[in-house]
Amino acid sequence: MSAVVERASGGVLAPRGFRAGSASAGIREHSSADDVALVVVDAAATAVAFLTANRFAAAPVQVARLSLAETGGRARAIVLNAGCANAGTGPAGLEAARQVIGAVAGRLGCHPAEVLPASTGLIGSALPTERVAGAVAGLSLSDAPEAGTAAARAIMTTDTRPKESAARVVVDGRPITVGGMAKGAGMIHPGMATMLAVVTTDAAVEAGTLRAVAGPIVERTFNQVSVDGDTSTNDTLYLLASGRAGGGPITAGDAADALATALDAVCTDLARQIAADGEGATRRIDVTVSGARDDTDARAAARAVAGSNLVKAAVHGADPNWGRIAAAAGRSGALLDPDLLRIWIGEVLTYAGGPCAHDPAAASAAMRGDVVAIRLDLGAGDGIGVAWGCDLSAEYVAINSEYAT
Amino acid sequence: MSAVVERASGGVLAPRGFRAGSASAGIREHSSADDVALVVVDAAATAVAFLTANRFAAAPVQVARLSLAETGGRARAIVLNAGCANAGTGPAGLEAARQVIGAVAGRLGCHPAEVLPASTGLIGSALPTERVAGAVAGLSLSDAPEAGTAAARAIMTTDTRPKESAARVVVDGRPITVGGMAKGAGMIHPGMATMLAVVTTDAAVEAGTLRAVAGPIVERTFNQVSVDGDTSTNDTLYLLASGRAGGGPITAGDAADALATALDAVCTDLARQIAADGEGATRRIDVTVSGARDDTDARAAARAVAGSNLVKAAVHGADPNWGRIAAAAGRSGALLDPDLLRIWIGEVLTYAGGPCAHDPAAASAAMRGDVVAIRLDLGAGDGIGVAWGCDLSAEYVAINSEYAT
Repeated sequence: MSAVVERASGGVLAPRGFRAGSASAGIREHSSADDVALVVVDAAATAVAFLTANRFAAAPVQVARLSLAETGGRARAIVLNAGCANAGTGPAGLEAARQVIGAVAGRLGCHPAEVLPASTGLIGSALPTERVAGAVAGLSLSDAPEAGTAAARAIMTTDTRPKESAARVVVDGRPITVGGMAKGAGMIHPGMATMLAVVTTDAAVEAGTLRAVAGPIVERTFNQVSVDGDTSTNDTLYLLASGRAGGGPITAGDAADALATALDAVCTDLARQIAADGEGATRRIDVTVSGARDDTDARAAARAVAGSNLVKAAVHGADPNWGRIAAAAGRSGALLDPDLLRIWIGEVLTYAGGPCAHDPAAASAAMRGDVVAIRLDLGAGDGIGVAWGCDLSAEYVAINSEYAT
Repeated sequence: MSAVVERASGGVLAPRGFRAGSASAGIREHSSADDVALVVVDAAATAVAFLTANRFAAAPVQVARLSLAETGGRARAIVLNAGCANAGTGPAGLEAARQVIGAVAGRLGCHPAEVLPASTGLIGSALPTERVAGAVAGLSLSDAPEAGTAAARAIMTTDTRPKESAARVVVDGRPITVGGMAKGAGMIHPGMATMLAVVTTDAAVEAGTLRAVAGPIVERTFNQVSVDGDTSTNDTLYLLASGRAGGGPITAGDAADALATALDAVCTDLARQIAADGEGATRRIDVTVSGARDDTDARAAARAVAGSNLVKAAVHGADPNWGRIAAAAGRSGALLDPDLLRIWIGEVLTYAGGPCAHDPAAASAAMRGDVVAIRLDLGAGDGIGVAWGCDLSAEYVAINSEYAT
């Protein structure tokens, strides 16, 4: 991927061909903030989804699978809500999702299967279907950046800030833009898309190519984020491609590489934002693994370290406890050679086939910033991988002991 | 397993043929409490070990593997220490373990390979070899129950209480006793024996049979405990059989079943004690799964629920959040049918193919005792399984943010 990628401003509305809107349907009991969002593409677009691997999949996930099978990878809109996961709701939950979809399809004059749903919030509560349908039928759609930010804000649950990103590449003289929004915060762990996210692009690309390009990127970005080890019932990443950048469909070669570069930039940025805003988090943890047997091993080791409660608690206390890092890598399943293993905390080498003489105060200082960099070399090959996590604080426990049931 | 098992008093010294002792070697900086323990069998006994699957295995684990291969499953003693894991210590760590072993072997007049080591505590620190060797060479050995309890206390780290158990069965008119001690508290998660434990018996049994009998029991007891998802570098379970109960060696049939029954009782009891005394824990969580495709699936689902940070935090807050229970089971890999899934909190059915009308106050009340019973039926077969965990408290974070490096 040699294409030059530049950051762009805006989120899902950075690419051409999209509009967004949000409104309050009063789903949350004690809040009048917006809780429904709609992302619309001007004409039916290429659509690809990466959905939770959780067997207790929510109603919107079940509906999305059927709809994408029916359309073969086309969509006009994504409708999202916070405050209610519409999971564990049985046949009534499927019907609720379909009614909301019907309201959007009626408004846009498209087939219901072209409207893809996503929900986040409490499992088991019923969606107030009529209020949500009314809200999405009536909200204003706009292509102004503020509308995208408002949509990103509407899907927040325990997130403390909206998450947006955009990047641009030039292919054959044509700019192609990728934009995205996401929410994360809790029940965040790898296992096939790990949050709600919508990523848009104006590239012209068919579903098969888009999925092939995006698959490996999802593996090394969203699937490498861990907040608490709990894979959600609702995890969803939608990718929409409007084709408005023009040109023939991207199929392979330099153009596909360039699209991948921009997608990677947006997905990495959103993944990092999700990690940094984990429930109760005060610091992001970036774990970089090299010297693994292969990239899969490297990613597994990185994920184990970033997801270890003991490492997370040590980072919270700025305790440069390399033993916990080694132990987490050791249980990850990745091949490692204890005699060749090296562990850095920030720039401080703490272990190299045995404990290293080092200044613990310097290592501790490297754990006090907003981002704590942990690096391991497994001494087993050339594989590399990265994972992102966050520290474990008493606030995480407080949030999750008291989350309203 | 139809043998009648009865609880016995005492721990590792309940069976005949064993003595124990403990002493302080001053391994811990700010404590003069005993930190080394020795369990000795009168004559070379059958020995079997279940050792950590962590690739960053500690020196004592590496030594134990070699020694058991050399003896073919015989031992005279187990030497244990707290305060230092002797992990991540390179060749010097192996040499330290061998020196301690040598001191015990010298005292007992046995081959060094007949002395099996186990360490727990901080990873990366060096064992004060001479002090430990001096302590184990000089400590008093006794077959009085108090000596066993003192040994169980000496291996504690952040444990708040010693863990002992014993059970007795009668085989062909002969009583056979099984006893055990364990320490747990942190870095506790399935993956092949999950803590330090020594289980003794006076049964006459060869290593192959003992391993065959114990393997499935370890799978469904120690490997079903989760405190924090972190498999340790030092996890070790030693089984010693003195043969002092008399009779020919147990090989199969009713006698092996009876031994299994007593082993199961002791391992289950110790596993529960480890879960209940998890770092920062205020409640034990017992998860029972039925209706799984098979027992392996049932155990996986039970482990996922017992190990879920979100479930653990909900239990801490006595929040009967069945959605998190369903989500954890759903991501466990176990087959489940959301339309047939049932979830009980205590005796309260909260979900049965959809949310159940129930009294949340009653469900919350069921989460306020010392033991919280969570039951799931996956609706996919006849498999059953149990796992034990504990709640996640701010105290866990405090303990592990401040654990001395």
